[in-house]
Amino acid sequence: MARLVLKFGGTSVANVERIRNVAMRVKREVDAGNEVAVVVSAMSGATNQLVAWVNEISKFYDPREYDTVVATGEQVTSGLTALALQQLGLKARSWQGWQIPLRTDSTHSKARIDAIETDELDRAMKSGEVAVVSGFQGVAEGNRIATLGRGGSDTSAVALAAALHADRCDIYTDVDGVYTCDPRIVTKARKLEKITYEEMLEMASLGAKVLQTRSVELAMNHRVRVQVLSSFEDKPGTMVVDEEEIVEKQVVSGIAYSRDEAKVTLTKVADRPGVAAAIFGPLADAAINVDMIVQNISDDGKATDITFTVGNADLDRCVKLLNDQKDKLGFVELKPDPNVVKVSVIGVGMRSHAGVALSMFRTLAEKGINIQVISTSEIKISVLVDEQYLELALRALHTAYHLDAA
Amino acid sequence: MARLVLKFGGTSVANVERIRNVAMRVKREVDAGNEVAVVVSAMSGATNQLVAWVNEISKFYDPREYDTVVATGEQVTSGLTALALQQLGLKARSWQGWQIPLRTDSTHSKARIDAIETDELDRAMKSGEVAVVSGFQGVAEGNRIATLGRGGSDTSAVALAAALHADRCDIYTDVDGVYTCDPRIVTKARKLEKITYEEMLEMASLGAKVLQTRSVELAMNHRVRVQVLSSFEDKPGTMVVDEEEIVEKQVVSGIAYSRDEAKVTLTKVADRPGVAAAIFGPLADAAINVDMIVQNISDDGKATDITFTVGNADLDRCVKLLNDQKDKLGFVELKPDPNVVKVSVIGVGMRSHAGVALSMFRTLAEKGINIQVISTSEIKISVLVDEQYLELALRALHTAYHLDAA
Repeated sequence: MARLVLKFGGTSVANVERIRNVAMRVKREVDAGNEVAVVVSAMSGATNQLVAWVNEISKFYDPREYDTVVATGEQVTSGLTALALQQLGLKARSWQGWQIPLRTDSTHSKARIDAIETDELDRAMKSGEVAVVSGFQGVAEGNRIATLGRGGSDTSAVALAAALHADRCDIYTDVDGVYTCDPRIVTKARKLEKITYEEMLEMASLGAKVLQTRSVELAMNHRVRVQVLSSFEDKPGTMVVDEEEIVEKQVVSGIAYSRDEAKVTLTKVADRPGVAAAIFGPLADAAINVDMIVQNISDDGKATDITFTVGNADLDRCVKLLNDQKDKLGFVELKPDPNVVKVSVIGVGMRSHAGVALSMFRTLAEKGINIQVISTSEIKISVLVDEQYLELALRALHTAYHLDAA
Repeated sequence: MARLVLKFGGTSVANVERIRNVAMRVKREVDAGNEVAVVVSAMSGATNQLVAWVNEISKFYDPREYDTVVATGEQVTSGLTALALQQLGLKARSWQGWQIPLRTDSTHSKARIDAIETDELDRAMKSGEVAVVSGFQGVAEGNRIATLGRGGSDTSAVALAAALHADRCDIYTDVDGVYTCDPRIVTKARKLEKITYEEMLEMASLGAKVLQTRSVELAMNHRVRVQVLSSFEDKPGTMVVDEEEIVEKQVVSGIAYSRDEAKVTLTKVADRPGVAAAIFGPLADAAINVDMIVQNISDDGKATDITFTVGNADLDRCVKLLNDQKDKLGFVELKPDPNVVKVSVIGVGMRSHAGVALSMFRTLAEKGINIQVISTSEIKISVLVDEQYLELALRALHTAYHLDAA
């Protein structure tokens, strides 16, 4: 007997028929002798409608009321799912965040989970009752409903799995696992049987939208075994696990990319101490997130070119902000370029293998792809290239690192 | 300064535009220096959709999960209304049943209110914050969400007004008050300025769907001054008040009717003790509500005819049930007739005026309308007539009792 947390996303509970399908999956796990908690999202589309109403009333809304409104989407699904389970003859009941209670801090609309009191849930599950928990929500100070922000149901599920000491947390979604690369671009991409937390974290933060980044962090910190699998097919998905569980480590496990990148170059910036702080300080104050940064050595030792990337959505604000301070910063030219993409090779095996970066640079050079910026971490190498080369770069790297399906 | 509870029904909060309109009405009361609590229903149509989903999953549902699902309709409106009030510069917050808490018994889906703990609400209102309360719901044993049954928001509002010692409870709806008769049938019907609790109770239970019967009972028991008025027009509605507040009592205040009537006649029933119990016992056991009953004196003292009415929806079940026991009950013939209506004249003035019944019978006789069954209470006389005479009877009685508008 194991204890499982099963999480179903919005497309998996999009209508009554699919909720019945979810109930049948849950029943299979119960029939196999497992204790089961289910975490559900809102029916797909429901949250968007609720958010639209809030925005229609006021653009600058009280986030506590926003949370009160949008949390109803999950409440509906939790009740309907409990009913569908009862219809199959199972014992089941719905749990809202305040009933558990699942306590959060008071940063409404993007709250963080503080604590989950599992006594009652635990008792219910031990008695053979399936606990159907509304994802995405908890209760904050003053007994107010708080939501965890978009995609928060993944986080709810992992946090619940940690608190309940679950043996596994299955995240049912509309894809059947984590792939070596986006299969819509690289047709030879393979589904990974296992991936480490660290790798998944890099993949998630690079836009492989299988799991919310926060939920992966949480899983890593609490060593929750997470499985990503499809609610529409009957086959195992990808297990996100501790590095030690993976015997045959790949040097490179996957290749991710992000289109949400824009490059900014400042030419002939005075090459003196404090100039980087003068540039990036105001950006930080304006909540503009800077990702990659490269500073070229200047010819004469007096001026330098600085290149960095920001999210596409922030580009215009960033350009205006820097131009407003052109005299103070003392650059000659500001060149924005939204037509860039970031391509990253990811793998925990890099730690013990030299030459991974070299083969990346060589592969791209062979295809005539110019690398504009490079950044690395312990298990990742990212390069910025012209967006027209995205598909070519991904396919070439996928082959070069022996990731192609047989 | 007064303390007011304002209740807005589903059509009054049907969309964002109407919720803004509600907020403006509330603002006017706040600007006038009043402390205000607002009770809101779900957007019209929302509850039906939620109920439809529940029914689609299972016909015999767990009422606790049903309540969890359907209570979300009011939660959405309460949050949106609070936001709309804030948008107008008012302090406001939403309150769900469990946050107040408004405690109910555990008869889920038609729960009764046990107690309302008003400490927090009271403090909020005294601080100048508008309390926006989700109608129709409370919290039952075990911290489960419970709903009060269809139309329960009226009951929420009146109960809240009683608990908060409000000076008035305004029920905003899509009609502008209580009329002497249904204005769709009797064009000369007048809006009543005031009506007593007792009269309103008779009107409500006879199908004048302005206020839910339970809410009128509650208002009467706690002497809550209730006003029924339109949220789409700017004029006073009808006050439901204590009899003493009405100086000039009408003998007849209004004429109500119900189409939901079916007549059943059993002929030649043995005229012996216990026969009524033998007939009506099984009907009560089957939860078939019997309304009017008349027993004719038999010619020979050995057999009698018994006529009674039941709700239209129960007629088929009633007929089957009695026919199954024909031998035991010993009647000769069972004659069902769904084509009847009940017409009632209502007025507290009847208590001190003789001749009210006589003028009713005379008026109907003059129009050639045959009275099939009669029943009376202290402030009401009801007759059963053929449904083809409904409009004629209402108009004739309305004139006879001097209710016609000038």
